[in-house]
Amino acid sequence: MDPRYVNPEIAKEFSKERKVERWLDTELAKIRAEANLLRIPESIFAQIDGTLRSVEIDIDLWLEIEGKVKHDLAAFVKERSGRLLVQLQPYFHAGLTSYDTEEPAFASMLKASISVFKGYLKPLVETIKDMAIRYRYTVMNGRTHGQEAKLQSFGKRCLTWLVQLGVGMDLLEKAEENLKFSKLSGALGNYGGVDPDVEKETLDILGFQPFYGATQIMPRELYLLPAMAICQITLTIQKIALDIRLGARSGRPIYQEPFGTGQMGSSVMPHKKNTVLCEKLEGMGRLAKGYLMTILDNIITWEERSIEQSSVERVAWPDLFHVGVHAARTITTVLRGLKVYPDNMLAEINSSCGCYAADEAKEFLRHEGASHGLSVEDVYGLIQLAAFNALAPDEVARTLRQNPVTSFAEAEKAFEQFSHPKTRIPISIRVIIADSMLVTSDELEATAETVVRWNQVLREIFKDPKNLEEWHRIFTPSHLLRNEKTLYKEILGC
Amino acid sequence: MDPRYVNPEIAKEFSKERKVERWLDTELAKIRAEANLLRIPESIFAQIDGTLRSVEIDIDLWLEIEGKVKHDLAAFVKERSGRLLVQLQPYFHAGLTSYDTEEPAFASMLKASISVFKGYLKPLVETIKDMAIRYRYTVMNGRTHGQEAKLQSFGKRCLTWLVQLGVGMDLLEKAEENLKFSKLSGALGNYGGVDPDVEKETLDILGFQPFYGATQIMPRELYLLPAMAICQITLTIQKIALDIRLGARSGRPIYQEPFGTGQMGSSVMPHKKNTVLCEKLEGMGRLAKGYLMTILDNIITWEERSIEQSSVERVAWPDLFHVGVHAARTITTVLRGLKVYPDNMLAEINSSCGCYAADEAKEFLRHEGASHGLSVEDVYGLIQLAAFNALAPDEVARTLRQNPVTSFAEAEKAFEQFSHPKTRIPISIRVIIADSMLVTSDELEATAETVVRWNQVLREIFKDPKNLEEWHRIFTPSHLLRNEKTLYKEILGC
Amino acid sequence: MDPRYVNPEIAKEFSKERKVERWLDTELAKIRAEANLLRIPESIFAQIDGTLRSVEIDIDLWLEIEGKVKHDLAAFVKERSGRLLVQLQPYFHAGLTSYDTEEPAFASMLKASISVFKGYLKPLVETIKDMAIRYRYTVMNGRTHGQEAKLQSFGKRCLTWLVQLGVGMDLLEKAEENLKFSKLSGALGNYGGVDPDVEKETLDILGFQPFYGATQIMPRELYLLPAMAICQITLTIQKIALDIRLGARSGRPIYQEPFGTGQMGSSVMPHKKNTVLCEKLEGMGRLAKGYLMTILDNIITWEERSIEQSSVERVAWPDLFHVGVHAARTITTVLRGLKVYPDNMLAEINSSCGCYAADEAKEFLRHEGASHGLSVEDVYGLIQLAAFNALAPDEVARTLRQNPVTSFAEAEKAFEQFSHPKTRIPISIRVIIADSMLVTSDELEATAETVVRWNQVLREIFKDPKNLEEWHRIFTPSHLLRNEKTLYKEILGC
Amino acid sequence: MDPRYVNPEIAKEFSKERKVERWLDTELAKIRAEANLLRIPESIFAQIDGTLRSVEIDIDLWLEIEGKVKHDLAAFVKERSGRLLVQLQPYFHAGLTSYDTEEPAFASMLKASISVFKGYLKPLVETIKDMAIRYRYTVMNGRTHGQEAKLQSFGKRCLTWLVQLGVGMDLLEKAEENLKFSKLSGALGNYGGVDPDVEKETLDILGFQPFYGATQIMPRELYLLPAMAICQITLTIQKIALDIRLGARSGRPIYQEPFGTGQMGSSVMPHKKNTVLCEKLEGMGRLAKGYLMTILDNIITWEERSIEQSSVERVAWPDLFHVGVHAARTITTVLRGLKVYPDNMLAEINSSCGCYAADEAKEFLRHEGASHGLSVEDVYGLIQLAAFNALAPDEVARTLRQNPVTSFAEAEKAFEQFSHPKTRIPISIRVIIADSMLVTSDELEATAETVVRWNQVLREIFKDPKNLEEWHRIFTPSHLLRNEKTLYKEILGC
Repeated sequence: MDPRYVNPEIAKEFSKERKVERWLDTELAKIRAEANLLRIPESIFAQIDGTLRSVEIDIDLWLEIEGKVKHDLAAFVKERSGRLLVQLQPYFHAGLTSYDTEEPAFASMLKASISVFKGYLKPLVETIKDMAIRYRYTVMNGRTHGQEAKLQSFGKRCLTWLVQLGVGMDLLEKAEENLKFSKLSGALGNYGGVDPDVEKETLDILGFQPFYGATQIMPRELYLLPAMAICQITLTIQKIALDIRLGARSGRPIYQEPFGTGQMGSSVMPHKKNTVLCEKLEGMGRLAKGYLMTILDNIITWEERSIEQSSVERVAWPDLFHVGVHAARTITTVLRGLKVYPDNMLAEINSSCGCYAADEAKEFLRHEGASHGLSVEDVYGLIQLAAFNALAPDEVARTLRQNPVTSFAEAEKAFEQFSHPKTRIPISIRVIIADSMLVTSDELEATAETVVRWNQVLREIFKDPKNLEEWHRIFTPSHLLRNEKTLYKEILGC
Repeated sequence: MDPRYVNPEIAKEFSKERKVERWLDTELAKIRAEANLLRIPESIFAQIDGTLRSVEIDIDLWLEIEGKVKHDLAAFVKERSGRLLVQLQPYFHAGLTSYDTEEPAFASMLKASISVFKGYLKPLVETIKDMAIRYRYTVMNGRTHGQEAKLQSFGKRCLTWLVQLGVGMDLLEKAEENLKFSKLSGALGNYGGVDPDVEKETLDILGFQPFYGATQIMPRELYLLPAMAICQITLTIQKIALDIRLGARSGRPIYQEPFGTGQMGSSVMPHKKNTVLCEKLEGMGRLAKGYLMTILDNIITWEERSIEQSSVERVAWPDLFHVGVHAARTITTVLRGLKVYPDNMLAEINSSCGCYAADEAKEFLRHEGASHGLSVEDVYGLIQLAAFNALAPDEVARTLRQNPVTSFAEAEKAFEQFSHPKTRIPISIRVIIADSMLVTSDELEATAETVVRWNQVLREIFKDPKNLEEWHRIFTPSHLLRNEKTLYKEILGC
Repeated sequence: MDPRYVNPEIAKEFSKERKVERWLDTELAKIRAEANLLRIPESIFAQIDGTLRSVEIDIDLWLEIEGKVKHDLAAFVKERSGRLLVQLQPYFHAGLTSYDTEEPAFASMLKASISVFKGYLKPLVETIKDMAIRYRYTVMNGRTHGQEAKLQSFGKRCLTWLVQLGVGMDLLEKAEENLKFSKLSGALGNYGGVDPDVEKETLDILGFQPFYGATQIMPRELYLLPAMAICQITLTIQKIALDIRLGARSGRPIYQEPFGTGQMGSSVMPHKKNTVLCEKLEGMGRLAKGYLMTILDNIITWEERSIEQSSVERVAWPDLFHVGVHAARTITTVLRGLKVYPDNMLAEINSSCGCYAADEAKEFLRHEGASHGLSVEDVYGLIQLAAFNALAPDEVARTLRQNPVTSFAEAEKAFEQFSHPKTRIPISIRVIIADSMLVTSDELEATAETVVRWNQVLREIFKDPKNLEEWHRIFTPSHLLRNEKTLYKEILGC
Repeated sequence: MDPRYVNPEIAKEFSKERKVERWLDTELAKIRAEANLLRIPESIFAQIDGTLRSVEIDIDLWLEIEGKVKHDLAAFVKERSGRLLVQLQPYFHAGLTSYDTEEPAFASMLKASISVFKGYLKPLVETIKDMAIRYRYTVMNGRTHGQEAKLQSFGKRCLTWLVQLGVGMDLLEKAEENLKFSKLSGALGNYGGVDPDVEKETLDILGFQPFYGATQIMPRELYLLPAMAICQITLTIQKIALDIRLGARSGRPIYQEPFGTGQMGSSVMPHKKNTVLCEKLEGMGRLAKGYLMTILDNIITWEERSIEQSSVERVAWPDLFHVGVHAARTITTVLRGLKVYPDNMLAEINSSCGCYAADEAKEFLRHEGASHGLSVEDVYGLIQLAAFNALAPDEVARTLRQNPVTSFAEAEKAFEQFSHPKTRIPISIRVIIADSMLVTSDELEATAETVVRWNQVLREIFKDPKNLEEWHRIFTPSHLLRNEKTLYKEILGC
């Protein structure tokens, strides 16, 4: 893992120092258990524990032995038992297979790392909650298919991020259930050398329950869910980052990543505010998927076990955690420092010419128009036409669209033209319809006669001041967002 | 999906007929809900329901409309509302966005398909349980790293398969929790056109709870867990199949796939009993992983949604279910008809020369040898030497190993030699040690003096008839498998 | 594969009818080869060929036999040899293993399918070339990190798409090289039953060369490259589709997907022009990746072969081709009908306030400013400040950004405010700098004194009319795009 | 990457020291190019080159600046240009965008790493070639579906490994073609700040050709092939390792991994020789696939680029190379030290009772039996019956198969029975058929009458001594392997 994505807490949990500590915990718990169950004298445990807790493991010696015997756990056993009086040695690692020692340590490592990860998710969740509350009344265009759809508050978008994360966090809780189990059931999992009662007592001391039906190892099926939960959360973070990137596209950004006063945008383009953090989060998502796939294959092993999974687990697990934590920290930084531009949100809504309430307009006209002979299809066509009228290009634009320029000379002429734009005030469909200003469009099927008829009906409807008042009301945020309170209540309880 | 892997029940759940039925269910539940909440007169619902339940959807007409409007749900709405009296039309699909209709239908489809899948897992589980009981006392070599390790019963191996499957089936249960939720909260998920109470009532009728915080669609995070559960179960099945394949390798197979009397082994090799079903299950695992990866990407979408996920879901979901069901059915067939050869299991144990109890032998000698000056390391070396003595090649073999033949003439000579083998009776380490028959090995470090010393100690130990009796006891199945009863009790309760 | 993504030509190549035809081709070529090499009389071949070419395969009978013998190729051999006179039967499929027949057929199927795929890539390439030429002088903002960067022509963007596709198409060519080989070397690939000369002659007739070193099957390593080439091309298409989606975001779209006059945008939002085709292409990319992963695993098989790859190949190969072809066809439709808005491209450039030439401005000032004491860092800071000045929010906006509204009442007030915007004419950095109008910004570090100094230097520089002329020149398209001609020449040769 | 899988040469190529060296190479080549093309005075280049080549980059300072400007390349430019006289500074990194500097460095890094990788493939190839020659006449059972099929030499199996690797190595060659290209074409790839001639000259100095049609970056399509080639080779190595594992299964291993005299097999099972290296190679394959998937996603970027790919490339590329190199080194160690047991290969053949020549036997009887009225189907059935006769279980075994033991007491009895096996001499189908000893089998359909008839025909056939001689000939290695010479000639030229 590149140092810039390494989290020191995760690195510590996966360090070799921590590993041998955990191995020792298992070995001593096993002897403690035997003493508890009166299989061996309490004093034996006391002596072994006393010695091994007081003499730290000599990491270099351990690695040296490993170099010779090619077996890291066996080397550890040699290093440790070498510290003991000869008569105590047979009690150390007695009857155990390597994975009896390793499995509880492995599950502990995952549990501790998940705990670290959750520590980074908490501030993320808090940050999003704060945003949801802060921007509860900040109106924006919701977008589907990248297109301006209807109005919502920015706070509500934050709520959707929150619950998406929540699905992953629930999964993480479920995944932790799988880590409650471990085993000390010997080389085949049928208690050849260890007694089931000793297993139970040992695991109890270590905070686990026995998993009945292990082979030499725990079934790797159990560890898929933790991997998936971390991957899923990373992908949800990627999705949030994607939404930031989309809103930060220049032109009229509705928000932007935090940007330090000393930060350089680009060596050649000093004006740029690139969404580099959010883009990196897409990279994190890609990496997380790769690690998940890798861990998925670990289910496949031979009979009572073969050791394909070991090298994968040495690499993919720490790296998956690093990626997950880095993603969580980065998105928290981005969201905490996010520059939000409610002005641009409003400007965007304004230039969309009232289409944000097309749905409500349609329902209104379906209801009011029925008695004037407007069919359901008339209404759909009428609204569509109003929208196309509102957003229709002017003559200059139409010409350019049909005949792209064919030389730099022409290009420069057009360029000049657009440098001093006649700012055409956009007209909303609210006005077009209320003032019966519909005209035909060559992009749509409605004929001139139809349009005349539609305008006539509209005039009649809006003669009634009550209709006009209602009409204007349906274009207001307080109407359009009226039900968001349900979301706040159900999700945040406020 | 190739027809040979298609399951008709799954195919039905994913058929277009079933889809539009489910869409209609949603639409009618919505109107029913409005009537229940007194938003519209009961009679409106009654009329719409009456009409649409009595006139079946014209699939051809629907597809024809879709061809024009390029939108399958919109085409469905046209087809259906065209059946209604004009005054009833505004009540149909009123205020809904397409995915308000589609999401409950989608979740229903997944639920129903999971139910089909579970129907095929049940006989698989029963089959494995039966095997576990049938072969509770059938002794075999457990294998780790493909090597004969210690003894276990074949029943116990079945138990480990059972609990591995169990992990996946628990996951499937959890996954179903995610399918309890759905939404009818409009184009952005903020109830622009639908009332939260109507959503709740509608979903209640359909058997769902509202998911608060949806966008236009349900977050795809929810559907990852079902996909993973199916994939995981398929991989566990692949792992079981792998164990069958490994045991069925010719030479001295311990079990074989069922083989019909009319079945052809191979066009050129009539004697062969290929594990073709189990091999196919590896293919199923590969496919399942591909579909999972594909569905994983569906978390990523733009803002309040874009429609990347749709084409993926049309393809990957049914195919993943087909693959999962086919895997479950195939492994059930294999296990039900599995030909088990306890004789070969025993022959295999016998030719391993007692090494299956090397662990117990080691513990015995650690205990008894201590007073005769055997260190822990002595014991390890002694056992290892006994094993190497027992399994040492004879002279002819040694020569061949060192000097491979260099011509067909030599090859044929060696070939002939091995056609009439002098059957050497293998000697067990049980005998070698009890009779102090150790000799040096050039593969190990022990010197001639050491070996002399070891033999001497052994003679002393086994002078004592109690030791000899105990020694023979530790090589018996009843001793070695004594703790398997815990597994039967904890897993099967028997 | 969902019928809507099925390509009939691909489906035909993968049909069972085509399969048995190809099997027959192999069988007859083998007999033809033996006759050519005088191993059997010419008349034998003539009789077999005559019979089997004249009696079509009875597909139902074949499938019925397969149901019994559980082996599709063996069933085919039975069906076919059953048509022959008894004395001719021994010559049919003599000495062959199933995969001797299947491998040439499989490679043929892939070759033919690639040919179909290439048929759909050709019009795509032509379409992009046409666009590159049509929009050679249509100026737009290039975007990096989603931000407006510098100017380019839209034609140049098309060129980059073209060469990206080209990388994949080169790969496809290389992949076809791998399909030149096949095998008829018997059950283990060591010519147990077939003579190497007969293999060579047979393959020659079928258009292949022998692959020396096959096992029972061709190594699956050979088929990874074709799969990857198709996947890569699909991903490139996804990337092009992504660029379309990004440019089509509403507000001021620079292009949009074609949209039929009868097409419905959205059931609730009639004004919308959703990029549904391009979004679907992201789905195609996801599927393609899944199939590639699946095929990748096929390298792994046991010893001289086991049959895991077969089920995967029945499913993943046709589906990968369907996805690839569907992607190619869809993007061609999108690009051919693409609605391009040069007016919006220009409007976008205009509202970016001249920042598109920030790089050139920087180089100009580095050069001209040096003698006036402007350091390299001064210049960077100066340009950045000009950009921040140009794009600075007005007072209303600043207030809103700092204090988001906290009620619907306030929201509505702000909403109203933005419905009648005082259209502020944006000032370009071109003007700010030339007219020395820099002011301090609280987002940047430059002090008031620094800004005074900068303005002073700028006044001096632009006193010189030659400087002013040069200054304006560097903001023109003909200057900024002057080197694109190299790209046209190198890529299109024009 | 876990330290145990890190290759120091790869680590060096990916180190930050090497990175900045390569960046500097690009920057200086650019200035050299400008001098060569007379755009700047030669002396400018000489001074800059002189200064920067003599003052090493201060890595700490560079990282410190990066911490502030959040841009590693920009920080590098600051560090480097800070070393130059003020008047030389504008010539450094002039007109370049970051990726103009980074892309050639990136391609160089990949090229150098591939070169390291190839260095480890060479001894692997040599080792396999040596094995192929050494074991050219060492006869073994080829296996398909894990079943003993026909005879081959072990040398021939090595040849198939060799050509499988060869496919990947060819791919690697093709992949290197993609690395011949790079770019210095500015922020959008349209030469905004750099002249095409300068690009060409610079790249020429660095050993590259321009890639026309880059955006700000090289299209990531180009780097997929190298990644796939490395992944494919790793998977081929995994496949070879799998074959080793399968042959090393205990019982009667045909080969085993090298095993040091001091190595420990297992802490509890001293006799074991685990295939831990080969199993680790399956882990390497899993990791490689994950990295490939990750890199595959890098094709997707926004418009003229966004920076998702960067974090992925920092992680996945070095780790993929480490994995590939580690795999190559490990399999070389395994194969070099492989312990091969020709004796067990022969013993295995012998106990397969002549079935290895079933195919040839069938052809012989088809030919000789025709005149005695044996049909093609008769022959197939006869051979199959002979095989089933040869391999039929004895009475004790049959009983055990039908009635598994139901208590430890029974288990122990059976156990005892098999500890002193009556060694039944296996009879070959060669003998059964030549001596017309066929008997009915309840696993097959042939009736007693049929069997009588078959035996009768056999008696007649083998009355003829020529037939008998030919019959025995077809069971010999020299006959069965006669065509392997073609493989040696075509693949090794010997």
